[in-house]
Formats: sequence, structure tokens, C-alpha cells
Amino acid sequence: MAGNTWGERFTVTTFGESHGPAIGCIVDGCPPGIEISEDDLQVELDRRKPGTSRYVTQRREDDRARIVSGVFEGKTTGTPIGLIIENTDQRSRDYSKIKDVFRPNHADYAYLQKYGIRDYRGGGRSSARETATRVAAGAIARKVLAERFGVRIQGYLAAMGPLELACTDLDAANHNPFFCAESERLEELENYINALRKDGDSIGARINVIATGVPPGWGEPVFDRLDAEIAKALMSINAVKGVEIGDGFAVVNQRGSQHRDEMSPDGFASNHSGGIQGGISSGQTIRASMALKPTSSIIIPGDTIDTSGQATQMRTTGRHDPCVGLRATPIAEAMLALVLLDHALRHRAQNADVASGLAPIASERA
Amino acid sequence: MAGNTWGERFTVTTFGESHGPAIGCIVDGCPPGIEISEDDLQVELDRRKPGTSRYVTQRREDDRARIVSGVFEGKTTGTPIGLIIENTDQRSRDYSKIKDVFRPNHADYAYLQKYGIRDYRGGGRSSARETATRVAAGAIARKVLAERFGVRIQGYLAAMGPLELACTDLDAANHNPFFCAESERLEELENYINALRKDGDSIGARINVIATGVPPGWGEPVFDRLDAEIAKALMSINAVKGVEIGDGFAVVNQRGSQHRDEMSPDGFASNHSGGIQGGISSGQTIRASMALKPTSSIIIPGDTIDTSGQATQMRTTGRHDPCVGLRATPIAEAMLALVLLDHALRHRAQNADVASGLAPIASERA
Amino acid sequence: MAGNTWGERFTVTTFGESHGPAIGCIVDGCPPGIEISEDDLQVELDRRKPGTSRYVTQRREDDRARIVSGVFEGKTTGTPIGLIIENTDQRSRDYSKIKDVFRPNHADYAYLQKYGIRDYRGGGRSSARETATRVAAGAIARKVLAERFGVRIQGYLAAMGPLELACTDLDAANHNPFFCAESERLEELENYINALRKDGDSIGARINVIATGVPPGWGEPVFDRLDAEIAKALMSINAVKGVEIGDGFAVVNQRGSQHRDEMSPDGFASNHSGGIQGGISSGQTIRASMALKPTSSIIIPGDTIDTSGQATQMRTTGRHDPCVGLRATPIAEAMLALVLLDHALRHRAQNADVASGLAPIASERA
Amino acid sequence: MAGNTWGERFTVTTFGESHGPAIGCIVDGCPPGIEISEDDLQVELDRRKPGTSRYVTQRREDDRARIVSGVFEGKTTGTPIGLIIENTDQRSRDYSKIKDVFRPNHADYAYLQKYGIRDYRGGGRSSARETATRVAAGAIARKVLAERFGVRIQGYLAAMGPLELACTDLDAANHNPFFCAESERLEELENYINALRKDGDSIGARINVIATGVPPGWGEPVFDRLDAEIAKALMSINAVKGVEIGDGFAVVNQRGSQHRDEMSPDGFASNHSGGIQGGISSGQTIRASMALKPTSSIIIPGDTIDTSGQATQMRTTGRHDPCVGLRATPIAEAMLALVLLDHALRHRAQNADVASGLAPIASERA
Repeated sequence: MAGNTWGERFTVTTFGESHGPAIGCIVDGCPPGIEISEDDLQVELDRRKPGTSRYVTQRREDDRARIVSGVFEGKTTGTPIGLIIENTDQRSRDYSKIKDVFRPNHADYAYLQKYGIRDYRGGGRSSARETATRVAAGAIARKVLAERFGVRIQGYLAAMGPLELACTDLDAANHNPFFCAESERLEELENYINALRKDGDSIGARINVIATGVPPGWGEPVFDRLDAEIAKALMSINAVKGVEIGDGFAVVNQRGSQHRDEMSPDGFASNHSGGIQGGISSGQTIRASMALKPTSSIIIPGDTIDTSGQATQMRTTGRHDPCVGLRATPIAEAMLALVLLDHALRHRAQNADVASGLAPIASERA
Repeated sequence: MAGNTWGERFTVTTFGESHGPAIGCIVDGCPPGIEISEDDLQVELDRRKPGTSRYVTQRREDDRARIVSGVFEGKTTGTPIGLIIENTDQRSRDYSKIKDVFRPNHADYAYLQKYGIRDYRGGGRSSARETATRVAAGAIARKVLAERFGVRIQGYLAAMGPLELACTDLDAANHNPFFCAESERLEELENYINALRKDGDSIGARINVIATGVPPGWGEPVFDRLDAEIAKALMSINAVKGVEIGDGFAVVNQRGSQHRDEMSPDGFASNHSGGIQGGISSGQTIRASMALKPTSSIIIPGDTIDTSGQATQMRTTGRHDPCVGLRATPIAEAMLALVLLDHALRHRAQNADVASGLAPIASERA
Repeated sequence: MAGNTWGERFTVTTFGESHGPAIGCIVDGCPPGIEISEDDLQVELDRRKPGTSRYVTQRREDDRARIVSGVFEGKTTGTPIGLIIENTDQRSRDYSKIKDVFRPNHADYAYLQKYGIRDYRGGGRSSARETATRVAAGAIARKVLAERFGVRIQGYLAAMGPLELACTDLDAANHNPFFCAESERLEELENYINALRKDGDSIGARINVIATGVPPGWGEPVFDRLDAEIAKALMSINAVKGVEIGDGFAVVNQRGSQHRDEMSPDGFASNHSGGIQGGISSGQTIRASMALKPTSSIIIPGDTIDTSGQATQMRTTGRHDPCVGLRATPIAEAMLALVLLDHALRHRAQNADVASGLAPIASERA
Repeated sequence: MAGNTWGERFTVTTFGESHGPAIGCIVDGCPPGIEISEDDLQVELDRRKPGTSRYVTQRREDDRARIVSGVFEGKTTGTPIGLIIENTDQRSRDYSKIKDVFRPNHADYAYLQKYGIRDYRGGGRSSARETATRVAAGAIARKVLAERFGVRIQGYLAAMGPLELACTDLDAANHNPFFCAESERLEELENYINALRKDGDSIGARINVIATGVPPGWGEPVFDRLDAEIAKALMSINAVKGVEIGDGFAVVNQRGSQHRDEMSPDGFASNHSGGIQGGISSGQTIRASMALKPTSSIIIPGDTIDTSGQATQMRTTGRHDPCVGLRATPIAEAMLALVLLDHALRHRAQNADVASGLAPIASERA
């Protein structure tokens, strides 16, 4: 496959550039009989959308995903679901400043070297705009996971720059523009962002995402392990530079006697492994984390070259996020949903007849 | 695809259990005309093999990879290369202690729940034994990468528990059993391992791996980005819990003005991005890192359950590594090789005719 | 992959039902730098479109394919090309007669048993309407094949019922509604169709399709042989029940001394093999053929059951083709183009460096 | 994927050349808990093996398939099954006559042009020897199909040259070296082959293969239709030049009123469609047919060229079949089994929860 398809059995193939006529995707392999509406997609798209607060870019993307196939009388039919989001914010624009200049640490230099073509319109295919289609497809996956498998997914902001955030109330993450699950820190976050904006600079972030209700058995060793696929899924999101499962890099300095998740008939004693052992879900909560770099589109001028190879400087003036990580939570959730549903279907393709004879133990013992 | 195949154009499909008759793999899509011999594979297998020092498990795997197809008169023919490694160390053994008991944090509980079958022989398919086939296939990929594309790959131990290790001499990593690139720390490492063994415990590790000579242009956005595929490849290795590209999780607390890799006609000013931008290689050195958990097979007893769900205790007595990370460097190198060659071929499938008109700039400026 | 994607490197993923809001597809992996416009697609869509003559269904599909991504300033960028065709002919309709009744030999009974959902609107996903997206995607493939590889594709009607048609002037096939390459037979064809329509019945057809300019070397044994992929491609077209390469079923009664295509420095002496040997193109003209069944949607009543399993009768009254084969030539050409371009790219992924040292011999000697 | 893997969920990846050290395959995605032994494979390998009668090549391939992984205590474990068949008949041989000469209509010219390498040892990868691994893998698929899905597969010789053969007793096909299901014609077949051998010539054949017990619902439109995949599977067998489903090419001259398979509560009235409608199994018997060309390896000299492009002649002297079709029945059965099991698993991945509410009607009414 060329690179724009995710999944093996529940697949998503996407298209579209930041400033082209439309973006969209095809969701194939969706189980039939699932109630789905454009409103279901809208809920998720609205969570991701820029312009929801003054802390993210002010571009107004009035994203409306149109379902043009695969749903009949309100239910999925099992045939491919076509989703189209028109790019309404395509007003004519002056690209003269960026047309011939590579933005440092952006994708445009690499894209030119790969394809020999320069699409200078706002990032083209490499823009985070593309992730709207992931969120729309993810909304379908989340619906199937919830209704057919009892799986729920939720992410939250775990760090923004030096501010490390706890998860004291997971549900709260859905009710503030930072996806922060430690509500009492909101003012601190606002102050930090305001100072950053004043500096004309940007900052990195860490997002955590969890899934509950995943039964033991999902994941396809040795290569398509559940953790390996989650790593790919999260790393495929723009600006992500690191991925962890369970304790992640902390394991480097853990001892075996400390890390191993002991078991008893009452459940697991801990969840250092993040719910995945040997590449297969263990029945515990799936825990993953990802690091997003600070955007390079900042007001502070930086050295770069132009398309003829000459030295120049770049200074971004348009609307951009001081912390791209603030919009990433719904995208991480969507990608986790795509991985999990795909593996739910792959698992039952091979193992639908299996009865292990052993009831799953509790995810974590009280 | 079921889960035991890696790659799209240069593919590796593996089989084999820890204590079955043989392990092996099929390498398909290899360019023809490459000189390859069983000795080429042996060099890499010997680097990975247990028993090379007293710091890793004493099991003697006298791994000999037999090439049974796809090579004629010393050269690859373009047809599938069959590799077989007989399991010579299959002596009859007493499994009675572990037959009915799950080892905490091992794969055996999840495997039983997935497949309904318990292969109690030393980990079966979930054993790290399987990675020998990756190393053998990786040896072929490394040869093609070197000869046809000028790419070199090298890994080293970056941390073992609390001991963080620099890379002062990359080549030195090939000449000690720790794959340590800071030679003056070897005694420190030995002492740490000896103390650990006395405690009957184990420890985690971090491995770094780099690739030089990768031209700009490899990687297939938006899902099969080069960084995403590396993340999957490394996370698919036993015991890995975290993956980073470039600065990795450090980006959480970096500012845009600090992270962005500025460019000039003389080259990039820095390499925070790890040689990948927008999911495509930039022409800089590829830098990745992974965290390996401490093995759970330790002498210190731990709570667990047996296959009937009853509480019991587990205490590993056999030969096991106090730090599985010590054997992981050649495996990380092999997986990076598989990713890179696959993407080299995918890239030229689509873009063989492309001329960007812009010479790649230097990887890093002097 | 779920079943709506064609190809490995040049891929086409389609969506859409006969009477839903829109149909379309995503073309991924297209080489960059190819000039392509909506007019290029329109030429092919117009060839396939119903309503072009009184011999095919009178439904007016004013198919306009919109290119919504992957093309910038008139050229492909290497990113996915999104194509959308709105279903303008979606007027409200009375489905009461067919809503609960299965049409004999149509897909609707099998679809219900597979998905548990009945989309009674004119065939839904199983309608030949879907093939418009194949033709649009095929138009892109044909352009790339012509410009980058010098390959041309042309089909023609080889038989309609008892009327067997020669190919006396291949180009003529593009200038009559039957795609007939034996112009002097046109009146005979018209008379046959008129009589058939009077009977309220339908008839089968045979379509031949050829490709010239294919170099030796395309095709990926042992499973993805070029002939095997062409067989799948043609058999995936609605109503096709048989596929042949070269002499096809005539080989059953041929002797080896007669069938083998002897060679000389001046070229091949014959082309019984249809340009493919051992699953790889030989450099000769590719020749394939397919048989299409008569449509079952006819005026003559037939026994069937309804969705509750009760016996009933079916009599189609709407607009339908007396010979669906008459519209199939552009579809066969499109599918052959998808196969060939995909294999051109797969071939060069692995074999870009190959020089056989032997110049291809002439396709056929004079 | 490179071209040596079949399937999506039940996959087979093969390796091996005619005269290399070994051939074999990896079967991945097999449901766990299936009893399988080397003897099960041997039964099928013996049916295919040359040397079983004086009507096929006298080469003694004492094929023994070794199961080296994926089976534990006599049952499949769900992990990849490694199968190895050593090439015992590798005695040193004089290749000087064929080393530099292309056999007309063989694969060796195309292979050289593709890979730039000439493996002159008896056909190398393009030899029918490779199909032994398909038969071994097919034996596993047939076992799973029979035990888990109630599906049975049987092929027979439908024509050898001008001799068209009926199916008067399907079971008889397993008890004679021709796979002939019309026992009273055996002497006629023997006489024909003997005369052919005297002429030093070869002849084509037609093989029919059927599957009973396939429930409605298997097949993945629009591209991975069940008929399309069967067409690819059969066309991927050496020497096959045509494939039919149901009535095949006879539909060209059928009317709709004749072809459509009418339905009643008692079952289908006929089976012109071959058990597949809209690309999905209908619950009727699956019927497919394939045409095999006469082998070009005959005693009668033929014009050809050598590897330097010079004119020469070729005359095969070694052991070869006068009718390769006589060995093809078990291979056709194996390929049909691979297609059906793969689609059984794909179907349940997506549709495991589906209940259509309509009991399947009888395959054919009495």
C-alpha cells in the first residue's frame, strides 16, 4: 500500500491538502448495523477544531463531515463509508513570503526532495489539517468499540513544557480547551500560554491516552503487536517525537522485582506494562503516552534556505498555535481507536472459536 | 496480513518457537545481484547470540542460518530467500514447574487468553529466540543498504539502569559485550551487573541506534511515515516499552526557537528532529532510541496464578539475562535496516523519475 | 485490507452506492509531475456513460469527476488524489415493487446474507455504477502508462451472443457505441439488439483488451503473476464469468508444438501466450479476454423469493441494458491499466538497478 | 507485499527453487486448536507427486513436508506454521545443453529480463516444483475448512485435448492417475497419452473444481470478490491460461431468461452462476474451471535464441509430462482452499455479529 491507508480489517484511507478544495477519507471494513450520523462525527470534530479557544489558532475551520456512502437509513451497511469535509476557509491568500522559502523543521524541504513538487499552500498534505479526517474516522471506530466491545478511550494533557499535570479527574479533560484532567491548574496553563505568545515562541507537550474495557487477546505478534501498532499510530501524528506504553522510558531504571505486574485471583497488583504483554492485551487498562514538539512556525526569525538553495530568514506571521499539543488529544484518541478496532476484528478473524477456559482476571485489584 | 510479516516491498515473514525444531524466515523482494553468503549472516547472528559473555544468558545457541533458496552462485536472484536456523538446544527438559503457572509480566497469560493454547516450552513464540531471524534478515537488508544506497547503521547501549552512557567512540560498541560506546565505563557496567545477579534481580536499559547516509525523501506520509514505521519496528522487539526519534520526550520542555533545526547552504545547524521531518528523511543522520524493561524472569519469588486461576508463586530458576537490553542492540539495528530498505524501495517505486532540482544540503554543518 | 482497494503501489480505494449522494475514490501512490485535469477523466467517463446511445440504458448520468486533492497547478504532487462524482440522478423514486423482493441472479440476496442489511436502492454498492470510479482512476493510470512507460491499452467487443466479431480496425472501436472493431457489422449488431429488446430479454458478450508497449519483466511470481492479477482485475468487474490470457481455453486442445511461441533474433514467431510467460511480461502484446453474462434484469417474469422467504415473481420494469457487455470495454481497459501501472511500479521498486545484458527481442517478427 | 504471499488473514508465503536445497512455506493466521500432522500433509502431497504413474514425469520426488513450528502436541497454536520440504532429488546434473538457451514459451527469458539473473537449473523458481508447497499449505486449509466450516473441495479432469470428460462419479477422481471422474474413459485416456508420447508432443487440459458447504456471505466486493480471488488463485498456477466461474464463457451466448438462477423457498432452480453472485457466495456449490496449456518442453525441436541473442534450436530430452494438466487437480483444490478459508476469516472479522433474519435456501432444489 501507498502510505495513506491505516489498518488491515478496519481501514481508513485519507486524502486532502490544507488548502485544497476538500479533505476526506474512506472507512472500509466497518461492521454493519451500527447507528452512525453526521452529528456523531461532528462531536469529535468540534473537540479537535481550531478556534475553540484563544489558546489555539484562530483559523475558523467550520468543519462539517458529510457521509456520502456506506450508511443507509442511519445504519452502517458494511460497505465503504465515504467522508468529505469541504475546505471552506480557502480564501485567496498571499503566499509570496513563503512560496520559495523552506520553514525550518517543517516538512516542506523533505517533501520537495521526495516528490520534486512544491505545494506552498499552508503545508499542503503535511499540514495538521489532515488529522481532521482521522478524527472523523476515529469517531466511527469509537462508536463500534463502545457498542460492540465495551471499550472506552480518553486522553488528557500530561505536560505542557515544564508544567507536569496529574490526572485527578479524567472526565474534566473534556470540559476545558487544554484537555487538562487537573482542573485546578487551568489558570497556570493560561498564564503560561499568554507569556509564550508574548515571546513569540512555542512549546512542546505530552499527551496521555488510555483505553478501558479491552479484553485480553488483542494484538498480532510478532510484528503487529498491539504496542507496536499503537506506537506507529501515535508517531504518525504530526509533531510527535516519542511514544511510550505503560511506564515507558521509566523502565530503564526499574528493577524486575519492581516492574513485573504480579497477579492474583483478584486481579493484577499493578499496571507497569500498560495493559500489553508480549504484544497482546492483558485485560488491563491500555496506557500510552506521546511527546509533541513545539511548532517551528514562530515569530522569532530563523535561518533557512530558499528553493534555489540560497541562505535567507524565515519569520512566520500567520495564525499558528503556540502549543500544537493542545489540539492533539482528540487525534491521539482517534488513532488509538483505529488501532484497537482493527485488532478487535483481526483477532476474531483467527480466534473466534477460541475458549481459553480461564476467565480474565480483574484489570487491577482493589 | 497475519502479524508475522514485516514490510511492503522488502518483506520478512518469520516462524518458529523457542523450543520447537527450527526457526526461520522468508525474505521476499530483495533486489537481485547482491552477493550474500551464510557467513554474512553469521557475523550478525554471533553479535546477538547468548553465551558470548558471562553477562548474558549461558544458553548455548550455536545458531547457524542456512540459506535454502533465493541465492544462486553467491548472488541473490530476486526470488524469496529462505533462511532456516535449527534449534540445536532442544534437549529434553523438565517443564513441570512452569507448565501450569503464568510468569508475571510474561506473555504466557495473554497468549493463552488469545489462542486458547498453552505452549509452556520456554516462552514458545513469545521468546526473544524469535529475534534471531530478524537479525539474519537484517543482515541481508544491511548489505543491500550499504552496497546500493550507501547507508550504515550502528547502535549502542545508552543506559543500563541508573548508568547513563555517552557515545564517545561509536565503533567501540562493536568490541565489548555491552555494546557500550564509552569504553572507560566497562568496569562500572560489569560491577553493576554482578551486584544485580547477586540480588537475583534484573534491570532495564536504553539502546540508541543511528543510520547515516540516508538521502532525503524516504518515508510515506501520512500513516507510513518513516518515524512511525521505526517506532513500530522498535516497539515490536520484546521488552521494549518506549521509542523516541531525535530528541524524543525532551521536546516536551523545548521551545520552538530551540528545537527547530535551522538550515543554511552549508547544512543543518542541528539535528533535534533525528533526521526526519514530516515523516520523510531530511538527509540528516537518523537517530532513534528505545527503552527495554527489566526481565520478569528473576529469582525473587512473585505472586501469580496458575492455569486454573488459583493463586501461587513463581520463582525463575533457569538461565536468564539480568538485563535483556544487553542483547538488544543488534536487533534494533536489524529492525532499523528492515524499515529503511523497505522505504528505499517504496520510495523509488513512486518517485524514480523525480529530480527536485535542489541538491541535498549537508547533514550537519561543520 | 477490506475489499475496496486495488493495488499495492498504485492503489485505488473506492466508495459509493448507486443511489447514494456520491461515489468516488482515492488514488494513492501516483508518480508526481504528471499533467492531469478533470477533462482527462471526462473523456474516459463519457466513453463508459449510459445514455450515449439507444442501445444502452437511458439513465442520464451526467458524471462529472471532481479532483479535490493530489493535483496542484495542473500536475500530480505524489499525494493521494481524491475523486468525487456526485450522484445527480437521485430523484425520489418508488422502490415499493423491489424493496422486499430479490432479483434472481442479482447480488441482493447474497448481500443481505453477508451484511444483514438490505439496501434496496437500485443495487446499492453492487450496482455497475461503482465502475465509474474505476474508469476515472484508470484514466490517470493510462496517462502515467503512456507518458512514463509508452504503454497503450485498447479494448473491443469480440462477441455479442452468437455474433462473433473480428478486429479489422482497432481504432474503429472508439467510434461506435458497441466498441466494435469490425465496422461493417454495426447494422447487424443494431438489428440483434432491437430484436432482443422486443423479446424483453438480454444477452451475454465477450470483450477483448490488449496492451502494447509493455516491456519484458512486469509481474511478481509466484502468486502476483501478471496474468493472475489481470484475471482478478477483469473478474472483479460486474457480470464477468470468465477470463482468458492469450489463447485461453483454446489451449486445452492445442499441442505443445503448436502452442509454444518460438523465438528468433527477429522476434517471437507467434503470441499464443498473450505476452506473459511464467507470470512475467515477455515484451509481446498483452492479450486478455473476458465473458460477461446477460443481465438478469429483464421484463420476462421470473421465480424468486421475498425477504421473508416466501415465493413470488420478479419482473424488471425500469431502464436496463439488454447487453451489459456493451458498456464494459472502458471498464476492462481501466482495470488493465490499474494492473499494469501497479506492476510497473512494483517491478522498479525491486529491480531498478537490473541490466539483463540482453536487448528485448521484437514483439512479433514481421 | 512482494509476490510470494497469498491471502490476507490465512496467509501462505512460499520459497524455493526446483533444484535448490529445499522448498517450503509459512502458513500464518491459522486458527488454533486444529489437529494437524505431517501425515495429513503427506496424503495431499502424494496425490500431486510426479512418478505416481507412467503418465506423468518419472522424477522421483519423495516429498516429505516437515512441520517445524506452529503445531504443539498435535494441534495448531495460532502461531506461524513453518513447512519445509528438502529437495532430495538434487543429484549433480549436466545443464550444459540448456544453460545458455531459452526454452520457447518457458519463463526463463522473462525471468532473465526481469531479474538480470539466469538460474538455469530446471526452471528455478518458475518450476511447477513450487506448487508442492501450495498443496501442503492447502492441506491445512482444507482441514480447517472441513472441521470448522463444513466445506469440502474436489477437482477432476474435465478435458484432455479433444477428449471431453463428464463427471459421472466425483469420488472416482481420487482413484485414478488422471483425476478422471468418468471411469469408463480411462483406457481412452491412456491410449491418447501413449500416442502423444510416441509423437514427442504434449497437450492441454481442463480441470474443474467444486466446493460444497460454503455458506452465503463469503467474498469482499468490490475488488476482492470471491470469484475474482478464485480467478487469481487458479491463474497463478503454472501453465493456466483461462479461468471460468459457473457457466464461464458459455454465458456469451446465453439469454438472461436462460442464465438467471431462479429462486424458490425450496432452493435455487439452477446454478449457472457457479455459486457466486455479486462477488459473494450464494450458498450454492462453487464451480470453477481452468485451462492448462501443453508444456513446451517436448522432444520436437523448436526455434529459439541463446543468452547472447543468437538463433539456435531447443529440444528437450529430460523427463517431462506430456500433459501437465494431469498433475494440476490437487493444486487447483489447494488454491481454492486457500481462497475460501481466507475469505471465511475475512468475512467473520467484519460480520461476526450479523444475523440476516433469513435462513439460507437450499443450494439446489430437488
